[in-house]
Amino acid sequence: MKTLKEVGFNAEKTVENGNKFLLGNGRLGYRGTLDEFGSSACVGLNVAGVYDGVKGKWRETINAFNPFYMLVTADGVPLDVRNGNVLRHAVELDISKALFIRDTEFSVNSRKVSLHCERFVNYADKTNLCSRAVITADGDVDLDVKVGVDTDVWELNGPHFKGVRTGADGHAVYASAVTQEAGRRIDVVCRYSQPINSFSGGFAHITAKLKKDEPFVLDRIAFVLLGGKAAEYGYEQAYGLHLSEWEKTWQRCRVLFGDERAQFALDYSVYHLAILAPDGDYSIAARGLSGQTYKGAVFWDTEIFMLPFFLNSLPDCAKRLIKYRIDTLPQAKQKAAHYGYGGAFYAWESQDGYDACSDFNVTDVFTHRPVRTYFKDKQIHISADVAYAVLEYYVHTGDRELMLSGGLETVLQCAEFARTYSYYNHVKNRYELLDVIGPDEYHERVNNNAYTNYIFHEITVRGVRLAKELSAPVSGELLSGLEEWAAKLYLPQPDGRGVIEQFDGYFALEDVSVAEVRSRLAHPNEYWGGSGGVATATRVIKQADVIMLFNLFPDLFTLDVQKANYDFYLPYTEHGSSLSHCAYALTACRIGRPDEAYKAFLDSAEIDLRGGGKQWAGEVYIGGTHPAASGGAWLTAVRGFGCKGEGNEI
Amino acid sequence: MKTLKEVGFNAEKTVENGNKFLLGNGRLGYRGTLDEFGSSACVGLNVAGVYDGVKGKWRETINAFNPFYMLVTADGVPLDVRNGNVLRHAVELDISKALFIRDTEFSVNSRKVSLHCERFVNYADKTNLCSRAVITADGDVDLDVKVGVDTDVWELNGPHFKGVRTGADGHAVYASAVTQEAGRRIDVVCRYSQPINSFSGGFAHITAKLKKDEPFVLDRIAFVLLGGKAAEYGYEQAYGLHLSEWEKTWQRCRVLFGDERAQFALDYSVYHLAILAPDGDYSIAARGLSGQTYKGAVFWDTEIFMLPFFLNSLPDCAKRLIKYRIDTLPQAKQKAAHYGYGGAFYAWESQDGYDACSDFNVTDVFTHRPVRTYFKDKQIHISADVAYAVLEYYVHTGDRELMLSGGLETVLQCAEFARTYSYYNHVKNRYELLDVIGPDEYHERVNNNAYTNYIFHEITVRGVRLAKELSAPVSGELLSGLEEWAAKLYLPQPDGRGVIEQFDGYFALEDVSVAEVRSRLAHPNEYWGGSGGVATATRVIKQADVIMLFNLFPDLFTLDVQKANYDFYLPYTEHGSSLSHCAYALTACRIGRPDEAYKAFLDSAEIDLRGGGKQWAGEVYIGGTHPAASGGAWLTAVRGFGCKGEGNEI
Repeated sequence: MKTLKEVGFNAEKTVENGNKFLLGNGRLGYRGTLDEFGSSACVGLNVAGVYDGVKGKWRETINAFNPFYMLVTADGVPLDVRNGNVLRHAVELDISKALFIRDTEFSVNSRKVSLHCERFVNYADKTNLCSRAVITADGDVDLDVKVGVDTDVWELNGPHFKGVRTGADGHAVYASAVTQEAGRRIDVVCRYSQPINSFSGGFAHITAKLKKDEPFVLDRIAFVLLGGKAAEYGYEQAYGLHLSEWEKTWQRCRVLFGDERAQFALDYSVYHLAILAPDGDYSIAARGLSGQTYKGAVFWDTEIFMLPFFLNSLPDCAKRLIKYRIDTLPQAKQKAAHYGYGGAFYAWESQDGYDACSDFNVTDVFTHRPVRTYFKDKQIHISADVAYAVLEYYVHTGDRELMLSGGLETVLQCAEFARTYSYYNHVKNRYELLDVIGPDEYHERVNNNAYTNYIFHEITVRGVRLAKELSAPVSGELLSGLEEWAAKLYLPQPDGRGVIEQFDGYFALEDVSVAEVRSRLAHPNEYWGGSGGVATATRVIKQADVIMLFNLFPDLFTLDVQKANYDFYLPYTEHGSSLSHCAYALTACRIGRPDEAYKAFLDSAEIDLRGGGKQWAGEVYIGGTHPAASGGAWLTAVRGFGCKGEGNEI
Repeated sequence: MKTLKEVGFNAEKTVENGNKFLLGNGRLGYRGTLDEFGSSACVGLNVAGVYDGVKGKWRETINAFNPFYMLVTADGVPLDVRNGNVLRHAVELDISKALFIRDTEFSVNSRKVSLHCERFVNYADKTNLCSRAVITADGDVDLDVKVGVDTDVWELNGPHFKGVRTGADGHAVYASAVTQEAGRRIDVVCRYSQPINSFSGGFAHITAKLKKDEPFVLDRIAFVLLGGKAAEYGYEQAYGLHLSEWEKTWQRCRVLFGDERAQFALDYSVYHLAILAPDGDYSIAARGLSGQTYKGAVFWDTEIFMLPFFLNSLPDCAKRLIKYRIDTLPQAKQKAAHYGYGGAFYAWESQDGYDACSDFNVTDVFTHRPVRTYFKDKQIHISADVAYAVLEYYVHTGDRELMLSGGLETVLQCAEFARTYSYYNHVKNRYELLDVIGPDEYHERVNNNAYTNYIFHEITVRGVRLAKELSAPVSGELLSGLEEWAAKLYLPQPDGRGVIEQFDGYFALEDVSVAEVRSRLAHPNEYWGGSGGVATATRVIKQADVIMLFNLFPDLFTLDVQKANYDFYLPYTEHGSSLSHCAYALTACRIGRPDEAYKAFLDSAEIDLRGGGKQWAGEVYIGGTHPAASGGAWLTAVRGFGCKGEGNEI
């Protein structure tokens, strides 16, 4: 399997490479940064599913203290790649082994000193991460290795820790603290294979006389403990366990596909999904384990774009993802009740089921004021997405038990939410879903978004059918109410051209190109949506919306309709979301456009390889990895290119 | 009657005084500017009900060519108040005679030359306006008087004329042109009482040798002709006719009231209403005849704030105002059909019944881009306001004939519009009016705005009752449909405190003061509403909203409820609309708060005397007179202070 390698150091790529060379084991993510870097270089050890909130700021996942801080000083010269005394430098991510390697040669006075470090986040032990440094020189030099658990963490909305304590014994340094909000204790420990000579200010020094061509090896065995104890193994043992897990994982997950470029892009996508495989009662964040962007919260990305991979390749993880939603049904019911509705309204940005989404999710770049956005209260399709995922899980697993212990209830409560959210149009004799936001978030508060209406219709019909099939103990009144509702729910139909209007009034919006809309920006980072956004009053959309429907329910629409909509909407699509390209790619496969599908597949699969993309929405940082795009790439390969003809469902 | 006088010249007050010293006769308005001023000083001769639109710009009323341009040169020195050689200067508006007087003494070398000009816009001849200039000096001077019909007009969205021609004969100068859009011909003529010596470039010169203490008198008799011929009278005759009309008008309209300050403020308000009394098949613009602000369009201001004055004092004009709405019912039906509804949806900004309101009615001060606003498509209460006015007209006049020839139909079609606009809440078993804007425009797209729901309910119930009372030939199905609808229309009820929530979710908005919200402005002219506005996510409102209901339907609400809402909403009210103060004043009268009512009365009645106020909404100029505030002042005097106890309806 190809590896990812980058030769030479470019300080401007520090943040991007942090994402690109990310390691992870489902619970812990370690960014692709260098040993000598600190918080200003966005070093991050992200912990999935553990949240903390500071008063007046957004709640988010925590970044743990960094156990891998290391600054080597040789003959008094610090070996920092940013200092300019670099003879050669390369970083590499071997995705087959999930191993990160940095290899740097420094010029130290008249000597050459090389620093070779490998690290992995142990796939077999979710608390463990290890690194081995090998230092060699072409002459004798005095080494001073500063190591420690760096408590100066990179945080978007911190500080998240209080009561920070650090300490050391002969071979280890530790730091512990509790989170601000819940007082949850976290211990970060790093054991060293060489004895510590001194310790002060949280950092230890290990000194050595390095002989010419004799390597100095320092292993670091680190643990992030949220309770429980650290294992006792050394580097080789840990690495063995790690490799063996990855071997199994690749056997289960790898898909052979296409040319070398496409194969690597797909392998890299699968890698990014596999490093997120959850191990406990949490789910996957929209930016994975690459940091705190989007608050480390769980979006529809997981159910619609990532779940299919797990259903096919790692079904235990798929079950965990579904269980997460079933377990947080009470919070979804609470949210629905809060807004005056029945049923279950899932969190747009779920943190343990609670909605982390702010009513002011964008900051205006001109006034620096928060802008009222409606993602939280109007993007109701999240409930349908969750229900759809539960139903898909059942289709793939036949797991009646999970259906009867919460799965079916989840589906029906999501449907019931939509029923109570809807209004009856007494003139047209139909139910309508008013004042919503579809996947295309640039158009807020629209009526009868096609994606939203169709998906709620389908999950309702299928949910009722499943209840009958399972002879589930469900209220007959609930079922008949849902049946009557679904039968009268308005489903926007294709017009004469075969095009389905994305929402009521969409066709009447300004017919203008993406380039023209972009040219109207008054600030590069301004938000395109909301009432004053450049896209709002135009047909330009953030991402595939109607097109997504075809991927979920290809049998509901003729290929002619799918073609007509693909050709109509694609030119208006800005792809401001990483979920967009793969949606078009999948449809392109179905309608017989392999070249376009291939291009869109690469746009999706290579998103984190290429870097770039939108880093800001208003004044809010939205950088990080894009696991939904990775999932979309997998979908395109397996359910797009991997299947022929009509009727391929994702 | 007191007159309005201002001594000394202050260039910064040019625009403000243009409004403050406005003359008008219902068809023509002439701003309180000086003879030597041109378009840059906002000289304006506004013509009611005549609209023109230039491609890509807003359609608006026309400002006609200025027949009163005059620059006197004495011994080679131009007598322009802006040049600094001014010994004394005063302007005066004698509202009892509707006469504007300017009196200026200039220093010309060693001489004193005084210029005394009077002008009036003939209340007895809607095409005529006259001015008399008297020039005297304390020594002999050579006079050169440059006069003409100045075709360089002040326009917000012009140029509105093409084919401009000017000419002169011995005693007159004329200019003619046609409007851009409809090619409507307009002729402006000015006759002089002195012979013209020369004419070129559109301007004439009248020269004279002025003897010490011998006045030089120049009368200017001007006409704005939209067809028809100019009358033949001289200054004295025209003035006599004018005065006689005003004597009758004051006899009909004057209300004796309160102390000297309040009396003058009320007289001044009545003056501002009387100069707008329409003479033909047009209605009154929101900024009266003071210019092109708000496109010279007709808003709900006319029906709700001004109509009561006309109903009581000038009923023929009231009938014209009602006829205007009846005559434009087809356009209102067209607008409703355009948006997919039945019945009649009146124009938010009516120009001959067509909606002049843009979908982008505000320009963002930061991006300089138009912002999508929803005044046109969501401020549905306009139809209820129109229906309410028709019903009020019937209550005051008993004019069955007008009711049976369009009046009743107008009411029922407005009700039918709301019925078809509404949705049925199948969970709560009631009709709701969703996605509207109430009078408080800072909160767009709200559900169940109390003002909107109540007024539609009342006009529906009353309209159906009237149809039965008149045994009108109306479809029984229409009536029973409306009856069923009104019976199930949701009417927000007072809560435990007696407060009616302005719209669904209002109470949940940020509870913050007007001052705090103002302090958040990033630009003094930025718009407070829309999605990014400072007021949007707070309880701060632009103007009285729930409170207005009490003024329309005082019997529907107990005094305790009126008090509770007055006390609740007043602190949140920014009074960003000139309609706001009088609404509170009227309610204050009813709930026994005479001191607060008096203060709010003055805030309303003196608005144009004080000047100031909001001149900008985003980048759009909104200056001019405030006849709705004048109407509100009259209402407060007559139906507030003039009545005791409960049950006073406006």
